[in-house]
Amino acid sequence: MPEPRRYVLTLSCPDRTGIVARISGFLADLDAWITEAAYHSDPVSGRFFTRQEIRCTLPTEELTAAFAAVADELVADAWRVTDDADPKRVVVLVSREGHCLYELLSRWHAGDLGAEITMVIGNHEDLAAVATMFGLPFRHLPVPADAHGRAAAFAELVDLVDAQRPDAIVLARFMQVIPPTLCERWAGRLINIHHGFLPSFRGARPYHQAYDRGVKIIGATCHYVTAELDDGPIIDQDVIRIDHADSAAELVRKGRHIEKAVLARGLDLHLADRVFLDGRRTVVFD
Amino acid sequence: MPEPRRYVLTLSCPDRTGIVARISGFLADLDAWITEAAYHSDPVSGRFFTRQEIRCTLPTEELTAAFAAVADELVADAWRVTDDADPKRVVVLVSREGHCLYELLSRWHAGDLGAEITMVIGNHEDLAAVATMFGLPFRHLPVPADAHGRAAAFAELVDLVDAQRPDAIVLARFMQVIPPTLCERWAGRLINIHHGFLPSFRGARPYHQAYDRGVKIIGATCHYVTAELDDGPIIDQDVIRIDHADSAAELVRKGRHIEKAVLARGLDLHLADRVFLDGRRTVVFD
Amino acid sequence: MPEPRRYVLTLSCPDRTGIVARISGFLADLDAWITEAAYHSDPVSGRFFTRQEIRCTLPTEELTAAFAAVADELVADAWRVTDDADPKRVVVLVSREGHCLYELLSRWHAGDLGAEITMVIGNHEDLAAVATMFGLPFRHLPVPADAHGRAAAFAELVDLVDAQRPDAIVLARFMQVIPPTLCERWAGRLINIHHGFLPSFRGARPYHQAYDRGVKIIGATCHYVTAELDDGPIIDQDVIRIDHADSAAELVRKGRHIEKAVLARGLDLHLADRVFLDGRRTVVFD
Amino acid sequence: MPEPRRYVLTLSCPDRTGIVARISGFLADLDAWITEAAYHSDPVSGRFFTRQEIRCTLPTEELTAAFAAVADELVADAWRVTDDADPKRVVVLVSREGHCLYELLSRWHAGDLGAEITMVIGNHEDLAAVATMFGLPFRHLPVPADAHGRAAAFAELVDLVDAQRPDAIVLARFMQVIPPTLCERWAGRLINIHHGFLPSFRGARPYHQAYDRGVKIIGATCHYVTAELDDGPIIDQDVIRIDHADSAAELVRKGRHIEKAVLARGLDLHLADRVFLDGRRTVVFD
Repeated sequence: MPEPRRYVLTLSCPDRTGIVARISGFLADLDAWITEAAYHSDPVSGRFFTRQEIRCTLPTEELTAAFAAVADELVADAWRVTDDADPKRVVVLVSREGHCLYELLSRWHAGDLGAEITMVIGNHEDLAAVATMFGLPFRHLPVPADAHGRAAAFAELVDLVDAQRPDAIVLARFMQVIPPTLCERWAGRLINIHHGFLPSFRGARPYHQAYDRGVKIIGATCHYVTAELDDGPIIDQDVIRIDHADSAAELVRKGRHIEKAVLARGLDLHLADRVFLDGRRTVVFD
Repeated sequence: MPEPRRYVLTLSCPDRTGIVARISGFLADLDAWITEAAYHSDPVSGRFFTRQEIRCTLPTEELTAAFAAVADELVADAWRVTDDADPKRVVVLVSREGHCLYELLSRWHAGDLGAEITMVIGNHEDLAAVATMFGLPFRHLPVPADAHGRAAAFAELVDLVDAQRPDAIVLARFMQVIPPTLCERWAGRLINIHHGFLPSFRGARPYHQAYDRGVKIIGATCHYVTAELDDGPIIDQDVIRIDHADSAAELVRKGRHIEKAVLARGLDLHLADRVFLDGRRTVVFD
Repeated sequence: MPEPRRYVLTLSCPDRTGIVARISGFLADLDAWITEAAYHSDPVSGRFFTRQEIRCTLPTEELTAAFAAVADELVADAWRVTDDADPKRVVVLVSREGHCLYELLSRWHAGDLGAEITMVIGNHEDLAAVATMFGLPFRHLPVPADAHGRAAAFAELVDLVDAQRPDAIVLARFMQVIPPTLCERWAGRLINIHHGFLPSFRGARPYHQAYDRGVKIIGATCHYVTAELDDGPIIDQDVIRIDHADSAAELVRKGRHIEKAVLARGLDLHLADRVFLDGRRTVVFD
Repeated sequence: MPEPRRYVLTLSCPDRTGIVARISGFLADLDAWITEAAYHSDPVSGRFFTRQEIRCTLPTEELTAAFAAVADELVADAWRVTDDADPKRVVVLVSREGHCLYELLSRWHAGDLGAEITMVIGNHEDLAAVATMFGLPFRHLPVPADAHGRAAAFAELVDLVDAQRPDAIVLARFMQVIPPTLCERWAGRLINIHHGFLPSFRGARPYHQAYDRGVKIIGATCHYVTAELDDGPIIDQDVIRIDHADSAAELVRKGRHIEKAVLARGLDLHLADRVFLDGRRTVVFD
């Protein structure tokens, strides 16, 4: 008898009675051993979401075909079978600030990321040495200020990124607004860390905005990127308490730590197929 | 066609494949509408836990009989069918400190508790006026220091409490050690708030212990009471950050707020059948 | 020798060198025993803030006169001497939701508020019974929708409130916008709890806004009221983590607890003269 | 006129009236510009603590001599003048787990540490490549299990470490108990990260202890090392919420992030002369 393989199955579909029975019956018929299962019925959107971690002796293609039939029957709007032996691929985009890059590369180097980082791309050269130190290819892709140069740069970016076939494209403090066409092209795979507690403090210099407003708690937000700036579906957030004695510069310094932590956690969740899109909201099985 | 009723079904049993399929099939056959469902397979204890909130037209007795057959088939060690129309009953035991009592009575008075508080019992009279103000019966039951008087007091307590047929007996800063026989008698219904972050600072004066040790975070713990003091299964905990300038008295003052919050949240979870015992641990579907 | 009295001294003034030396010298000359002291120099606003808790045998009038001279010398823009024996006074304004009122009244009733609540005023009658239960006067003051009736109601409110000579006027979920003239009249004494993490989700139904945006953390904000809605200086904030399974109604329910906790903490800080205005920001010595 | 230099002055002494006046008068006489000041009088220990960040044109030796006279007058038990231009030095000790090392080296490499890491020492070779990648010297110093070999290894460690003249010796998940004589020798400079929320879960495998106890919150503790294992004065702690679905292995994984964050923050505070020993407790001016 073949060694069982580990799979993650995800599916979202319109909610109705009997879905759990259908899916659990399907898995019982396969003699799949469910090691973790999550379900969510959303009463507002009227959609159903599930994620199943299973062990099963079927090869990927057969399992995928069988699950496709179930997905079809349930009129699934999204579903996926992921083989645990098939590592996810990540591309990281950076500018000048390195704290998020160090975090991702350290986790990858230590074997904690559960994915391959295949390339680092920077619109500045500042962090080339960091990528190189970790043994990763770094591509310098300046983004000119003029419309024409900018369009050419993003055209080159598309080629560079797509050639990597990434499961996640991570904006690790990449200080450029992504053109709407790319937001669309990479929808559900393009992940940003915003250094503010969204929806507060969208746009530039969120820590300075937070300082001026005199808030007592600051935060960071990991979200999918959409054409509307800093408005995409939120994957994860975290906060820290501050006080009147913290200058704006101190907020920047203190915020770095939660930024990198929230980004790493959001990316982890995404790579483990734990995040589902539900309109402007996300369902996260953590 | 009769109006559907709301039920909560809970069950725990030895884990094996096919349980979710069995239960979801059972519910699909009843045409029950599942409004919330949670499942947990524990790889260490080898037990399976589920909680289902459903709407269903069956009367309580019929649903209970049908679910009993499933429970029997799955060799369930615990299961329950709760009719939402049948309010839970709570008895509160207090000594002299009132913050937890105010919290519980305020929630009950505002209709937020989702249960009836049927009696308040105090080993001191200090809080009689609080219970009376809220229109609740207060019984003063002094607990003498000598073994004989103490045994008599607890014997009377058993009669008082059991006459209320409570779903929860809450020690709301009741400063008496409960005899092991009562811990056993009320197992899984006897809930305490410990004013320390267990397992740190068991026993008396936890805030003073925390002050002496110089911790930077203090907490409170809501747990089921067992014969071993402050060692029962934990339902919920919460913490707050403190610093060197906080005196022990200040810790007592700051801690009150998390004590009452954690107790109220733990009691909420218990009353909603969201807490399962798994040896020394709990499974909490929140 | 007379028994020492407890005082709190507060002062804010333009920053320059030697202020701490001047104030600490002044207190040393009085043989005042400093039990707690806090200082803050704000590099952005260029202002200095201090709060001193002292024991001193001087009567209030003499201490006040002596400190006035120091304040004058330092060109203080605000200063105050508070005699601990002189309890602060609080008026509470409510509408229909009671959780904040229960919290404040419970703390007051238990002797934990460190102030007198002298009156509860509601634009609805729903919470009259709660105030009465705690033995406090309740005044029903309906606020009509039409401009004329509304103006008359707020005119009556001014008389009612000012007659209490309150140190704090607390909007404990009072669902009426306060006219700018009253914001001005009660500036620095008018305290609101906003059920959202400001500056996110200003205005109506913040929990529903938070639900729609799909945030992973919600919060509450205690702030001084200014003419600009939900934009006054923030005293304190707190947050809790939520997830996709929490409905908007569940956010409302979970949020109640942090609302009342943040309001009570903010009020505590205000009543203890620990909060200083610094433009749109606050300095909080906690 | 010479360019002003930046200094940090710290002092602790028996509390009495007039200390703040004495110190602030001293600084006013020097025409020192105080950019940040903190004071704490501890009513239990009866000690006074202060930290002053100043700008002042005096050379280090003159300022130190002048402050020594004040310290002498105040019978200070500890005091220090630190010139900001004189970077602190750090030695890091590791075993096999790298997450804390990556964090410290990344911060140092990015220029965020505010100190020099001069050497990494490991009792295993696993992390040699990490130190080398960052361009830092790594020394492999195996610690044999037998008493004799162990004593020899620690003797060599003393020589290695002391040759670096470190301001901090950081146990970044160094899995060896430090001999009491070294705890004494490096008292107040030897910093450990314990992967548990002390005083809970001292000793080995704290996450497994936490799992078995069924706690709902886990934490990490940065503390000075003393001869009593995991019992030294706590510098900082932090926690995260967990639930029943988190295995012990998952706790280890989730805990890594707070371990490295708490260690980095604790080290930051130590290097900035913000941490004072007060018996078993610390005073931390953050």
